[in-house]
Amino acid sequence: MHVPLDHHSRTPVYLQIKQAVLEAIREGRLAPGARLPATREWARQLGVNRSTVAMAYDELLADGVVESFVGRGTFVARQKLAEVARLDERAARRTPARKMVWEGMFSERAQSPVVESLLDLYQVSTLRDVISFSGSFPDAASFPTREFRNSLHFAERTLGDEIYRYGPVAGYERLREYLAQRMRESGSEVTAENIIVTSGSQQALDLIARALISPGDTVAIENPTYPGAMTAFALAGARLLPIPVDEDGLCVDVLENVLKVQRPKLVYVVPSFQNPTGACLSWERRRRLLALAREHNLPIVEDDYGSHLRFDGDALPHLKALDDTEHVIYVSNFSKSLLPGLRIGWCAAARPVIARLTAFKQNNDITTSPLLQAALWDFCRRKRYEAHLEKIRPIYRARRDLMLRRLAEDFPAETVWTQPAGGLFLWVTLPPSLDATELLYQVRQQGVVFSRGRLFYSDNPKRNTLRLSYGHVTLEQIERGMRVIGTTAKAMLGRATGRTAERFHSHTVPLV
Amino acid sequence: MHVPLDHHSRTPVYLQIKQAVLEAIREGRLAPGARLPATREWARQLGVNRSTVAMAYDELLADGVVESFVGRGTFVARQKLAEVARLDERAARRTPARKMVWEGMFSERAQSPVVESLLDLYQVSTLRDVISFSGSFPDAASFPTREFRNSLHFAERTLGDEIYRYGPVAGYERLREYLAQRMRESGSEVTAENIIVTSGSQQALDLIARALISPGDTVAIENPTYPGAMTAFALAGARLLPIPVDEDGLCVDVLENVLKVQRPKLVYVVPSFQNPTGACLSWERRRRLLALAREHNLPIVEDDYGSHLRFDGDALPHLKALDDTEHVIYVSNFSKSLLPGLRIGWCAAARPVIARLTAFKQNNDITTSPLLQAALWDFCRRKRYEAHLEKIRPIYRARRDLMLRRLAEDFPAETVWTQPAGGLFLWVTLPPSLDATELLYQVRQQGVVFSRGRLFYSDNPKRNTLRLSYGHVTLEQIERGMRVIGTTAKAMLGRATGRTAERFHSHTVPLV
Repeated sequence: MHVPLDHHSRTPVYLQIKQAVLEAIREGRLAPGARLPATREWARQLGVNRSTVAMAYDELLADGVVESFVGRGTFVARQKLAEVARLDERAARRTPARKMVWEGMFSERAQSPVVESLLDLYQVSTLRDVISFSGSFPDAASFPTREFRNSLHFAERTLGDEIYRYGPVAGYERLREYLAQRMRESGSEVTAENIIVTSGSQQALDLIARALISPGDTVAIENPTYPGAMTAFALAGARLLPIPVDEDGLCVDVLENVLKVQRPKLVYVVPSFQNPTGACLSWERRRRLLALAREHNLPIVEDDYGSHLRFDGDALPHLKALDDTEHVIYVSNFSKSLLPGLRIGWCAAARPVIARLTAFKQNNDITTSPLLQAALWDFCRRKRYEAHLEKIRPIYRARRDLMLRRLAEDFPAETVWTQPAGGLFLWVTLPPSLDATELLYQVRQQGVVFSRGRLFYSDNPKRNTLRLSYGHVTLEQIERGMRVIGTTAKAMLGRATGRTAERFHSHTVPLV
Repeated sequence: MHVPLDHHSRTPVYLQIKQAVLEAIREGRLAPGARLPATREWARQLGVNRSTVAMAYDELLADGVVESFVGRGTFVARQKLAEVARLDERAARRTPARKMVWEGMFSERAQSPVVESLLDLYQVSTLRDVISFSGSFPDAASFPTREFRNSLHFAERTLGDEIYRYGPVAGYERLREYLAQRMRESGSEVTAENIIVTSGSQQALDLIARALISPGDTVAIENPTYPGAMTAFALAGARLLPIPVDEDGLCVDVLENVLKVQRPKLVYVVPSFQNPTGACLSWERRRRLLALAREHNLPIVEDDYGSHLRFDGDALPHLKALDDTEHVIYVSNFSKSLLPGLRIGWCAAARPVIARLTAFKQNNDITTSPLLQAALWDFCRRKRYEAHLEKIRPIYRARRDLMLRRLAEDFPAETVWTQPAGGLFLWVTLPPSLDATELLYQVRQQGVVFSRGRLFYSDNPKRNTLRLSYGHVTLEQIERGMRVIGTTAKAMLGRATGRTAERFHSHTVPLV
């Protein structure tokens, strides 16, 4: 029997032989009961190892397509022919065996409610057909794709094969130098040795959680706060200790009182344009928070996703810039201010911390793509990043202004909201009788979505809150979308609150 | 006092004011005891908020550079001037406070010996000045940089801003489709829904470990095996259960006996060109391993870093290709066969597994760069990946052949070694009296390095073993480097074994 073998095919040779036999059976060239060639003989004819033919026969045997009798040889089976004719090779390959039972096989941490909530998110909505105040995405229309192209070309044309190798775990050296230099300019005492480049802020938070949190440790967080931080700390085994937030950011006085009776392992804070409220931690509270950290030997994780997105007023110092005692672990990224798809962030901290994060990063993904790090470095040193920030700040300011106008004009009278001086979102508190989940259900049917406030709370969620992101909506979309939300909220206020909220399925809406 | 403020500078305005005051003091324009302007008055002159000036004064006060008297105002201090003149602004900014004590602040898992070993690796050796048989890196001289450039350009020019946004957590859809198609061609029953794209294999292993392993669970692994898998499972809390490896790969009969008395959570296996031995799991053992998995409801993690790097003989089926019962979690990547710097790998498994891995990936780094995923997809669909594999296989075969010749000619008589049919390395067992650590110490002084075998054992390390990688050495380097190792080993055999091994510091040599 002739088999046209292709040794360069991705289909293994033994499978090619098996398929040829199946084909011959289907086409009637091999009848039920027909004897197959002896393995040794056929292997010689085909120019393959005898074991390769034996493997093909094993497969056919396992599928019940052939039968083997010791001392007599291998024969086409009489029973299975109808099936073989009906089914394709893959399905016919083997009689059904016991399927793996995955239920109960996952780890304890995989069963945490945190993972359940992430499972709901399994598929990120593309959101192309709706006006989305959800997520915290930067404006894609402003992406400096042409300028970044030049840096990408520079990196891959002039830096040689280095950028396609495994790079240093802690990051591309020149990018680390740049980041340290940039941080020194805003007052932080850091060198490249204090920097680790990460695959976005989220990886930095995950590495920090794994390096610092033992199961049962407590982490003080703002309530509400960024859900990605909650999942990172919770999955490392932390109990979350919620501290309230007001218009000046984290309520440091509450933290101070808590510290008299509890000993959290660290405090996580978003000082600039807090996620989700948009609040800025006041100067006074920054100093006080650092004093507390020194008093209690308490590490502070400073998540600075957006201080460079300030469009009103003067910058406040980073906690890291006030920190000459190495209490602050600073985290930032290029995802909100430049290009999320680069997946590049960084962390600046004391060297013992960086050493641990580097070890955990090695275990996690070895390194972040040196190609993208090198391109980003080139982009930054050509001052394109500064230029991009100059370009987008007024865009976000104009959107924020329009958001505030629409809130004042379209929303129910008792609504209150924050007025962020930068960042990508603001925080709205509706009249207490309104439920943001029900509101979302209703506006979604009109093609508008937002993030429900409850997703940001670790404790005591306020159901009448919502986060409205203006990062990736146009002024026209803001006009229309805010009118839809405001009008719908007003209409809901006028009616008795129904039970429609139950019909809303959270997994159809992105978390943040 | 004139201060040339720059509101667009990265230096916050309050720091600019502070620096102007310090400069004025240093230059004598402000003498000790001189009164500073009132905050309100100066803020009006400078056109900034009063609080900004107050922040600058706060800083100066904290540094002891000025003194404040209620009702009288703020004055240049008389004491600190010499210091101010000597120190720069940053150092003078604040009197030293209690430094953070990081000792004892790290998590339990950060104190595991695994992390200690990774900390030793903190800085990856660049290895440019040595002949390195260490690491398992592909040949950089063969990188298809020009061909990949075209795909990079295609992706960023024609796919729009999509590739710079956050992409789907589970991966760029077209790449998932391609990977599923490719796997189907080699016999696996998978669709894109069974695939998650990861930042290299290492991330896949880390996610698998976190999704499946609870602290105290047992993981059966080959002994010796890939250290990155050991760290991933150990850091998730696993106890490692070593199963021996011989020339046919994992000793499945030993595993079978173990399963009679123990219940591991999963078994991790590298069936093709096992790391570090280069052994190939036999056809018979593959079937037997799957039968055991079915019998015990035991997941198999199949690490296929290199079956596509086969240069001798016919391909054996992937475990995943034999698995129609969803027991196999298949892991592979493009790091050994294409470009490590892309940091792209993938995992194929049952959908409940993929759902959990996706949740953990969302928590870990949200997504792998869509730009690089899209470029890789384009590269693959143009058949460049196949072409690249065709190109590099003979290169590695020639190197392997030369390695074998040199082993036969240059090494001590009792030396034995594996003869891999593919992959990037082989495994050498020296005469029992030789210690690979001492050998490494001696050859390193002659500009040659390799990986000591002991790094790959979870138990009972054989000190006379070494892994020799030929992935990124030229034929000339093999000639010279192998001669150095062989000659040095022979010389050591002739001498009494000294205690020089103690002088060797492991952190100067890469782990794998």
